[in-house]
Amino acid sequence: MPIPSPIAWTETHALRILDQTLLPCEETYLKLDSVDAVAEAIKTLRVRGAPLIGIAAAMGVVQAAGKRGSGEAGKARLEDIEGACKLLGSTRPTAVNLHWALDRMLRRAQRACAAGEDLRTALIAEASAIWDEDRAMCDRIGELGASLIPADSTVCTVCNAGALATGGIGTALAPVYTLHRRGQAPHVVVPETRPLLQGSRLTAWELTQAGVDCTLIGDGMIASRLRLGDVACVIVGADRIAANGDTANKIGTYGLALAARAHGIPFYVAAPSSTLDPATPNGAAIPIEQRHATEVSSWQGTPTAPPGMKVWNPAFDMTPAELITAIITDKGIFPPGEVSRLPLTAHRPR
Amino acid sequence: MPIPSPIAWTETHALRILDQTLLPCEETYLKLDSVDAVAEAIKTLRVRGAPLIGIAAAMGVVQAAGKRGSGEAGKARLEDIEGACKLLGSTRPTAVNLHWALDRMLRRAQRACAAGEDLRTALIAEASAIWDEDRAMCDRIGELGASLIPADSTVCTVCNAGALATGGIGTALAPVYTLHRRGQAPHVVVPETRPLLQGSRLTAWELTQAGVDCTLIGDGMIASRLRLGDVACVIVGADRIAANGDTANKIGTYGLALAARAHGIPFYVAAPSSTLDPATPNGAAIPIEQRHATEVSSWQGTPTAPPGMKVWNPAFDMTPAELITAIITDKGIFPPGEVSRLPLTAHRPR
Repeated sequence: MPIPSPIAWTETHALRILDQTLLPCEETYLKLDSVDAVAEAIKTLRVRGAPLIGIAAAMGVVQAAGKRGSGEAGKARLEDIEGACKLLGSTRPTAVNLHWALDRMLRRAQRACAAGEDLRTALIAEASAIWDEDRAMCDRIGELGASLIPADSTVCTVCNAGALATGGIGTALAPVYTLHRRGQAPHVVVPETRPLLQGSRLTAWELTQAGVDCTLIGDGMIASRLRLGDVACVIVGADRIAANGDTANKIGTYGLALAARAHGIPFYVAAPSSTLDPATPNGAAIPIEQRHATEVSSWQGTPTAPPGMKVWNPAFDMTPAELITAIITDKGIFPPGEVSRLPLTAHRPR
Repeated sequence: MPIPSPIAWTETHALRILDQTLLPCEETYLKLDSVDAVAEAIKTLRVRGAPLIGIAAAMGVVQAAGKRGSGEAGKARLEDIEGACKLLGSTRPTAVNLHWALDRMLRRAQRACAAGEDLRTALIAEASAIWDEDRAMCDRIGELGASLIPADSTVCTVCNAGALATGGIGTALAPVYTLHRRGQAPHVVVPETRPLLQGSRLTAWELTQAGVDCTLIGDGMIASRLRLGDVACVIVGADRIAANGDTANKIGTYGLALAARAHGIPFYVAAPSSTLDPATPNGAAIPIEQRHATEVSSWQGTPTAPPGMKVWNPAFDMTPAELITAIITDKGIFPPGEVSRLPLTAHRPR
């Protein structure tokens, strides 16, 4: 059974995305052919997952490159690109891949304009390269991570750091898919991940589509599930990794890490090397996005709490490096305190 | 603003209950005048909370006492009561108060039959006494617990161990209401408590009704919320306390206790002394109710996960005594290891 893919180019190099807000009930694909439409899709989580946001934003920048005739000045064309990068960069504050990808697209645009290249062709190639590199990174994370997981074992994750979050086979789920492709039988414990249920709606959906055995639990069940004693390790994704190894990821990750530590279970972060942000010294310096109260206090328009309920709804939390056993990247497996040794040249803004 | 009350006698000594499954959208009261109706209401969580289940079951036994004319043999009347106790006792496996209250009602029925008393009158009095004692226990827990909480501080709880779970002002929330009545300004952090949302639907509702300041969070946000540093203590209820202090409570309590320990925050269990079960040596011996998959994999009939999703859905978890700072009961505050010193005579089955 194939692993689902959440993004594609159309024939005209618009974006074709799977609307992840409608899963698991509806599998609906949307065509996005403007920067505004891509920004809206990122902001409303139709496209989500740190690596996929970077890819989608890069593909979104392309939509700004076709607006003017070839006769217009390079300066105006570059201003379009800068405006697109600014708009797309404002959609989500925590993920570093977004800004990394946009910086890369902007620099490519500058080079193309300076060299008199066709801007749109250059940007399509650059966005495609970002996507291809992400796919390769996922495969490499899968290979490296698979070496850490015993055969036919149970792993626990949180949120969705799978195919739906990337341009390939995922980050946290890449080792699972790699083992599955090798004919092993991994079993994944999937916390539902409130408030937006990326665990039950997305991770459970894509694992089921791919034929991987999985069990859904509520977020409050994590500690008890780990106590059962059969979970070989925890693997989660990352939205940003600070220079000291502190890691921002979906809200709930920190509590999962505390529970893993209490039960002596290895806790792995799996992420492309572009997730490391050397400019952020530690977790305290990572901005945490606060989202709207109604995500927690209602459900599809039906209130789950009294009217006007005060809500605290951070989208991410920070797991300190000391709770992380190792960080699995496409460049190797690192103890969290040594993640700043990552060879970054090829993957930082150029 | 008054603290809501979830149960009452009607004029004919049927039960009038607030249907807690419909909160916070609808405040609907149901009249229950048969044992079957009471058993259904307990099983489906229209009435819930360990102490309230005990009270409702006791009031339910009364409904079996009016079925026969006064001319019928005491043996047949006693068989009706035994049947009612058996049915009501089968509704929920974890809470010890249920069995404690039913044992007490059965013994009272036996005494009444042996002494030639009017059975129904005796049972109404006994159920009312169980309720009155519960109300007094809540008040005493409130007084004792309030002594542990700094003025105007923030506390964190889980699920609902408030007025809606008892015959009085609650167990975990009793100290909060006591402080509020004294003119202090406690603030309560309320995890929504999936899958059935007793935190957002019930705790947030009753605190709001009573005018107590509160903030709703997702269950996965607990560890991050405790890290903010302003939570003075955690107070939770209990469904059963083993002889060694290990405590069964709503699923999520154990993870909350681990997070409290990681941040050096006192973790209190508040429960009537009837919650202690000396016959259960430790947490491993407490039966944990598994509930239906669809509680986690759907929402009001809408799937939140792929069809046929495998789910692990325990209703309770076990928090080991070593994570509990103290157990607040109506008989005093005990270190968990000393809870078996509780003076039990007056509150064990007679």
